[in-house]
Order: sequence, then C-alpha cells, then structure tokens
Amino acid sequence: MSTEVTPESDSERHGGEAATGRRGARRGRRDGPAGIEQPPFRRIFNPYPPMRAVSDDELEAIHQASLTVLEEIGIDFLLPEARDRLKAAGQRVDGERVRFDRGFIEERIRTIPPSFTLHARNPARNVGVGGNEIVVCQIASAPNVSDLAGGRRPGNRRDFQNLVKLGQVLNAIHVFGGYPVEPVDIHPSVRHLEALRDILTMSDKAVHAYSLGRERIEDGIELVRIARGVGREQMEREPSLFSIINSSSPLRLDYPMLQGVITMAEAGQPTVITPFTLAGAMAPVTVAGALVEQNAEALAGLAFSQVVKPGAPVAYGGFTSNVDMKSGAPAFGTPEYMKAALVGGQLARRYNVPYRSSNANAANVPDAQAAWESVFSLWGAVMGGVNILKHACGWMEGGLCASFEKMVMDADMVQMLAAFLDPLVVDDDTLALEAMRDVGPGGHFFGTAHTQARFKTAFFAPMVSDWRNYESWQEAGSPDALTRSAALSDRLIAEWQAPPMDPAIREELDAFVAKRTEQGGAPTDF
Amino acid sequence: MSTEVTPESDSERHGGEAATGRRGARRGRRDGPAGIEQPPFRRIFNPYPPMRAVSDDELEAIHQASLTVLEEIGIDFLLPEARDRLKAAGQRVDGERVRFDRGFIEERIRTIPPSFTLHARNPARNVGVGGNEIVVCQIASAPNVSDLAGGRRPGNRRDFQNLVKLGQVLNAIHVFGGYPVEPVDIHPSVRHLEALRDILTMSDKAVHAYSLGRERIEDGIELVRIARGVGREQMEREPSLFSIINSSSPLRLDYPMLQGVITMAEAGQPTVITPFTLAGAMAPVTVAGALVEQNAEALAGLAFSQVVKPGAPVAYGGFTSNVDMKSGAPAFGTPEYMKAALVGGQLARRYNVPYRSSNANAANVPDAQAAWESVFSLWGAVMGGVNILKHACGWMEGGLCASFEKMVMDADMVQMLAAFLDPLVVDDDTLALEAMRDVGPGGHFFGTAHTQARFKTAFFAPMVSDWRNYESWQEAGSPDALTRSAALSDRLIAEWQAPPMDPAIREELDAFVAKRTEQGGAPTDF
Repeated sequence: MSTEVTPESDSERHGGEAATGRRGARRGRRDGPAGIEQPPFRRIFNPYPPMRAVSDDELEAIHQASLTVLEEIGIDFLLPEARDRLKAAGQRVDGERVRFDRGFIEERIRTIPPSFTLHARNPARNVGVGGNEIVVCQIASAPNVSDLAGGRRPGNRRDFQNLVKLGQVLNAIHVFGGYPVEPVDIHPSVRHLEALRDILTMSDKAVHAYSLGRERIEDGIELVRIARGVGREQMEREPSLFSIINSSSPLRLDYPMLQGVITMAEAGQPTVITPFTLAGAMAPVTVAGALVEQNAEALAGLAFSQVVKPGAPVAYGGFTSNVDMKSGAPAFGTPEYMKAALVGGQLARRYNVPYRSSNANAANVPDAQAAWESVFSLWGAVMGGVNILKHACGWMEGGLCASFEKMVMDADMVQMLAAFLDPLVVDDDTLALEAMRDVGPGGHFFGTAHTQARFKTAFFAPMVSDWRNYESWQEAGSPDALTRSAALSDRLIAEWQAPPMDPAIREELDAFVAKRTEQGGAPTDF
Repeated sequence: MSTEVTPESDSERHGGEAATGRRGARRGRRDGPAGIEQPPFRRIFNPYPPMRAVSDDELEAIHQASLTVLEEIGIDFLLPEARDRLKAAGQRVDGERVRFDRGFIEERIRTIPPSFTLHARNPARNVGVGGNEIVVCQIASAPNVSDLAGGRRPGNRRDFQNLVKLGQVLNAIHVFGGYPVEPVDIHPSVRHLEALRDILTMSDKAVHAYSLGRERIEDGIELVRIARGVGREQMEREPSLFSIINSSSPLRLDYPMLQGVITMAEAGQPTVITPFTLAGAMAPVTVAGALVEQNAEALAGLAFSQVVKPGAPVAYGGFTSNVDMKSGAPAFGTPEYMKAALVGGQLARRYNVPYRSSNANAANVPDAQAAWESVFSLWGAVMGGVNILKHACGWMEGGLCASFEKMVMDADMVQMLAAFLDPLVVDDDTLALEAMRDVGPGGHFFGTAHTQARFKTAFFAPMVSDWRNYESWQEAGSPDALTRSAALSDRLIAEWQAPPMDPAIREELDAFVAKRTEQGGAPTDF
C-alpha cells in the first residue's frame, strides 16, 4: 500500500547513488567543507511592540461587526455532533446554521490559555506558543515539489523525506507544520501513519497532524505519545502536536475539521483556527470586510473549542490576503496582506490568544519576486506580533509547491530576523570609545584589539548571501542565489543524521503503524 | 570635451536605431500596450510610530559617547576655511583637528529646521523633507551599469540618460539623488554641467548636485535656479536641490565636502551629512560603537552647517553597516544594518532633524538575495522613520552598479510600501456586513455588487509580480522577475517624454553651460 522507501534506506534525491555514511564525505570533498555554518537552534523572542494598523476604536468596530455576523448570519457547522454541543450550550441552531449570542462568544474565549509549551520528543526542541515568542514552522501541505536540478513534480515520499531532513538540519526551523509536501505515492488510508512516522523518526522537533477525520487525528496523537515515551495523562497535560483548522470560508466549518477540534481539544492538544479569507473571492473585497469574516470564523472556532473543553489550547490564525485583479488568483506578501497580518495580531491580542501568520508568496520560482513577497509577509507577521509562523521555510506558488532552494533561502531570512530581534547591546564595551581613541581620525579599525577580539562573532553570517565583489563572483561562475541555494540544499541534506531514538520506542511506533495498517488505516471517503 | 550625445538625439539603449517619435509606438506594438499601469506620482506619509531599537537611556549613552568623541578625540576638518570658522566660533583647533565643547554642539544644532520643502522645477513634483514624509530618491553615483541584454559595463552618458528617463517615468521616484550612473565619457571638468542639464531637461523632478568643490556646487545651484525660472533671493528661501556630504570616516571631513556644506548653507540649500561608518573597517566592530562614530561625525557636520548659516536646512544621514566577515567587503540589508537604521532614526528625532537612510543590498545580480536584502533595508529605514530614502531604486553591489531591472523592481517595492502605509479604511462600507448577508455561508463574493463596485481599484497592482498559475506561467516561457523587469524597463524608457520647459529657460540653461564650458568648467585636481 505504501511505497517501500524508508527513512533509513534512502537519503538520495537525484539518480540512484546508494546512501551510505560515505556519501556526506564525498559531497564534502566536492562542495567544500561538509559542515555548513548556521546559528544554533534556539527559541526566538520579539522584543518590539507590535505595529497597530487600526486604532482601538476601529479594532472594536471589526470585533463588533464579526459578532454581528455570528449573531445574525451565523456559521454553518457541518458536523451534527458539533451543532449538538453548541445547542446544548444554548446557541441557536437552524439546520446546519448556528447563530451565536454576542456575550457567549466573549465569555467562552476567556478560558483559552494565553500561551502553552509545545513539547517535542527531544525536550531541547520544546518551544513556547504565545507571549512574544515566535515559533518557526516548515512549509506544509504543498501538492508539488521542486528543485533546480529536477524541476517541478508532484509530491512523493522521496522528496517528502528529503524535505523532512532539511527541516531537521536547518536550525531556523522549530517545528514541522504538516507534511512539507504531500507524499501522494503513499495510499491515503495509511499516509498519515507513514508520513508521521517518518517525521517522528527522522527528526526530533515538534510536529503537526492533519485534522482529516477523527481516526487520523487520533492516530497522530498516539504516534506522538509513543514517540515522546509518555503516558496519555502526561500527554493531556503537555501539548505535543498541533493541528491547523481551516474554515471553509465563507462562514462554514467542515466535518473533518470539526472532528479535529473536538478530538484535539479533548486530548489537550492545540489547534490553530485559520480562516482562509481571500478578499474578493471567499471574503468581501475590502480588507476590513475580509477581516470581519476572518474574525467571525476564528471566533466561532475558538469558542467552539472551549465548549468542547474549557482551557483547551488553541490559537488564532490569520491568513487574509487578496486576489490578483487580473486573474483572480491568490496573491501574497501584498500591501493588503501586510495590513491584514497586522490587524490579525491586534485581534488575537485583544482576545489574549496566540497568533498565527505565514511567510507567503505567489511566485513560480525562487526569484526576486519570491523574496520580496516573502520579506513583506514576514514584515507583516513579525510586526503583527506573530507567535506561530507557518510556512516559514520553503513555500512557493501560494502554497502549491515546496521548493528545496526556497527552504534554504527562507532559513537564512528567518535567522536574519532572529538576529535582528536580538537586542542591541549598548554598554561601555560596545560603545568602543577606547577603540576610537586607539584608531583616531583617518585610521582603520581592522587591526585594533577591540575588533580582533570580536570579529569572528560580531556579525550575522548568512548561508546564501554572496558578498564577494563582482569580479570574484564572476570568476566563480556568476552563481545567483538560486544556484547557491541548490548546492546548499544538497549539502544540508547530506549532513542529516537520524536523531537518537530509544529502540523500544521505535519498536512500539512500528508496531502501532503495522497494527493500524493491518486494520486498513483510516477511511478515505472523508 | 563632452560626448555629443544630447537628450534630444538619443533615446536608444542597445544598437543604433534612430530615436524618433515613432519608436515608442513600435515598441508598443512589439511589447504590448504602451501604457504601463503605475500608481500616480504622490507624496508618501508614514503613519506608524517608529521602532525603537534602544531605550531612551541607551540612546542618551550613544549621544553622550559621541559628544565625548567630539570633545576628546575631535574631528579632522581638512579645509582651512572650515577650521577658521569653527575657531572663530570658539572651538579648539589643533592642526587639522577640531575639538568641540559638548554644549556648543547641543546649542548649535537647535537652529536646524525640522523640515523643509524641496522644490522641483515643476511645483507638482515638490516634496517635503521631515515629519513623517518619505522622499524616494533614485540610485546615485554607481560607477557601473547593467541590464540583462547588455550585461555590466562602465557608466556612460547613454545609460545615464536612459536611467534618467526611468527616473522621470517611474512614479515611485520623487527625486534624483545624484547621477544614477557616473557618465565617465563626459570630461570631469564639465560633467556636472552636462549631467545636471540632462537631468533638468529630461525630468521635472527635484535634483541633487555633488559637493565636489565650490565651483561645481555653485554651478549646480545656478543651473537649478535657471531651470526653476526664479531669482537668487527666491532660491535662497526655497530649497531646490540637495547635496550628500559623506565624511571620510573615521572622524574626518574632506575639502570638497566642507566647501559643499559652506556653499549650500550660504545659498539656503540643504545638505545631508552622511558618515559611512562600516563596522569593522572605518568604524568600531560593534554596532553601538559604529553608531557613536556615525553620530559624532554627523553632529560635527550638522553643527558646522549652523555655524555657516544658522537655520540652514540640513539632514542627518545614517549609513552604518557591517563588513562581510569572510572578505571584508561591505554588506547591506543585514540584521546589523537594520538595527543601525532604527537607531539612526532615533538619534535624528532626538535632534529634531530630517533622517536619511537607504535601500541597500550587496548582491551582484537582481536575484532573491538582492530582493531580501533590499526589503530588510527598507524595513529598517521605514520603521526607523526615514525621511530621505536614498538609492531607493536601482542600487546593486553595495553601490557599485546601477541596474535597469532592479530599478523597476524597486519601484514596485516602493509603491507596495506606499500602499502599505496608506491607512486601512474601517467604516460601515468597508466592514461589508451587507455583502456578507448577500453571500452567506458557502457562497462567493466575486459576483456581489459590493465587489463589482470596488474590484478594479481594491488592491495594489504591481508591475513586476507574476501571479499566474504555474502552468500559464510555464506556457508563457517561465519568465522570472529579472526577465519581466527587463521587458518593463525597455517599455518604460520608451514611454518617456520630455517634460515641457519654457524655451527661454532652455536657452538660458544652454547659454550657462556653454559659458562655463568655455571657461574650462571646474578644476579636476580636487
């Protein structure tokens, strides 16, 4: 049913070269030193106050308008169990439509925890969700994958595994936000089992599982519990995987997503309620209107999670953007996207809930457009006070493609941001009056003791940026950022090593996957 | 002495095709509709409070440390006249070295106007310098120029003129910040005459003149006065050109720059005092130390301008960055650059003086690196409260090359920023409750009256970004952002038309250039 590729036997992307311990060394000889310098894996904190794109009064107007939407128009909850729970909680149900009292929403969301720790199987990889922390997630859910050598192709397990290796090796990435590319050569009934086992064995970072019906999310919770080596009670106290809940905008929440909210909340695991409100398509053409819709859908999901289990961890997702006026296609990293990202953060803070945004672009190739749309997205997200930065590394084509090269570029951008967010040290030592006295007018600082003592660590050192002068760069074959990132991606994948895992845990994981596979996996008629 | 190329006879970049009025039409047929949609030329205001990278105490520590530098180490003023003026003002002069009393600096900079209008020969092109306005300047002073078709080549008048045409046509660009590329085929003695006449006749936007000795800057002032058609008295009241003053860091101000400060201040024209403090080279390796040096040099220049003429318009320039640790080459758009840009703005605001920063990158080709370094630079500049955004369009290679394609890309980025800075409208109309009532759960907004009435103008429409799906993009030949920008650059240049100029003024300009050329132009032994 699944392909026969396993993490252990495959570490090769192009051609049929056998994967061995020597491969890295061969690569090393060809491409230079094997070890690529990266800043260490570390948690990122944002010391800056968020930007406010609307006034408090305007924010209140958006909030009140979304309560009016929930009260007068309502939201379609497609899962009967969800409607039953909301009816029992006193809300008006009419067919699939649920209409909410304003006060009910405001009251229920008060039980949402403002922050929580997301546990990885390696505690050194734990991260905090909320406050001023930024959790960086790898791209998720792309149907296609591309690299410079192999071009664009449908998702498959081999590329999936190599992307997981990159996700493990790149220190910029804290968390897997889903499958970096959809491994469509694994049958849908067991894909969640195989793919999550791959991630959990090939990486020791925290993970995501898809809310595609109750069985899949239950399997995901169990796989993560086994990988962490903890009991169910401890799991319930310790968020250890998360799931993105996309509403079917406008104003609709689908079966499998609602099952995800219920199952995750009951298990004490966090969901991120993310409406996809594309202004001019699934949402009003005005940014303010799209935000009203985003907020109505998010509030409905947030309140519902607390109906299921008061205190369940949950986050507010913002994904509002606009369409291309010429084609109707989604656009990202636009001025409208940036403003929506800022207001999304204002709303999440109003509700005292962690905030999710994304590093998005709509380019077809990792070129200048891809980069500027990405940094504009990051600007909106970071200045909007993002806590969960989804699709932070590798996202292309509005999410339709995972790029190996873009992942390396994005990792550099994220590390630059992390360095930018590090506070500037101002003290007698850094003010450097003595160094200026030493050097004096017309001198040069390179040779001073002050410089020599600090030179190697003074500045952020990127992987991709090439700062050689034009002549040296030309002599080296004029490699652009895409070419350099392709070489780096290959070398980084070659650097991957399986993180240690207790053999008993590995055995238990395999046994669980085998048992569930034997049972036929999960239904495919969702 | 100069080449025979004149703005009127040459409008061709590649090959020898004669320039005629029909050329634009031919281009139009070849490349599609002639008119490229751009947002209109307009002034840009930044409604956001600036980011503060250091606390008030830390800012004061940087300020006080730079006063200590000025008091104890001092600055070399290479021009005797400048030293004489400072000695007369009571400061300690020892050889070339001038040491300043702390109180003198603080007192003198108080007479700097917090803002001023920069007048263009077309009053519709006037801009404000200071407050929360952002003035966007084209790239200046690159020794080389490049485009996709012709590659990289030394600066020359033909490319210079085509870049001036782009500067005129691109609505994102408010002001010429100098020569977009150095027209080295014009003899240095008359280059300032020919180049400024080109800019003043081919464009109606405000201009810059180089402080390369007294004669050149005096010629520049006179050329601009003639082009504006005003008398000397009116010129003195109305800033009508500006000049960048770079200190020769560390802690030195050179002859021609000081002559520029004196001549410009006496004529009521603004200078921008911009130290080039590269941490680890001409400045301490710590960002805080480099900022102390930047601030000391800037304060010396600012105070000196007010000694020359109290109330003379002048701005604070920040250009602190770091070197590449591997090569010693300048790097831009780095985390250190961003932080320095933020603190530069904090210092300028402390002194209540307009603030200059730049859109900088160190890439060798307009690729993803160029774009992300640019947007990181813009982030630092805009969030730092920049008033004069130098090198905003076209800068490459740390300033060593002007790129036609990058200029188009940057124009798009600047327009995106301008749209981002436009306040989000939140009112009953944009909150769109009626539209949501119309559409309801599961519907689509495209067909609603609310959408149809706003669709064409709802979103920012970029020139370069390609948002087609991958298949359509591939069918179109997979053009990346560089390729698309090259085509746009050609079309935009073809769209250029000479802005109207009174024939009497044109005659006066030509007569002045002829007279000064006959006199031998300006000395070339500076």
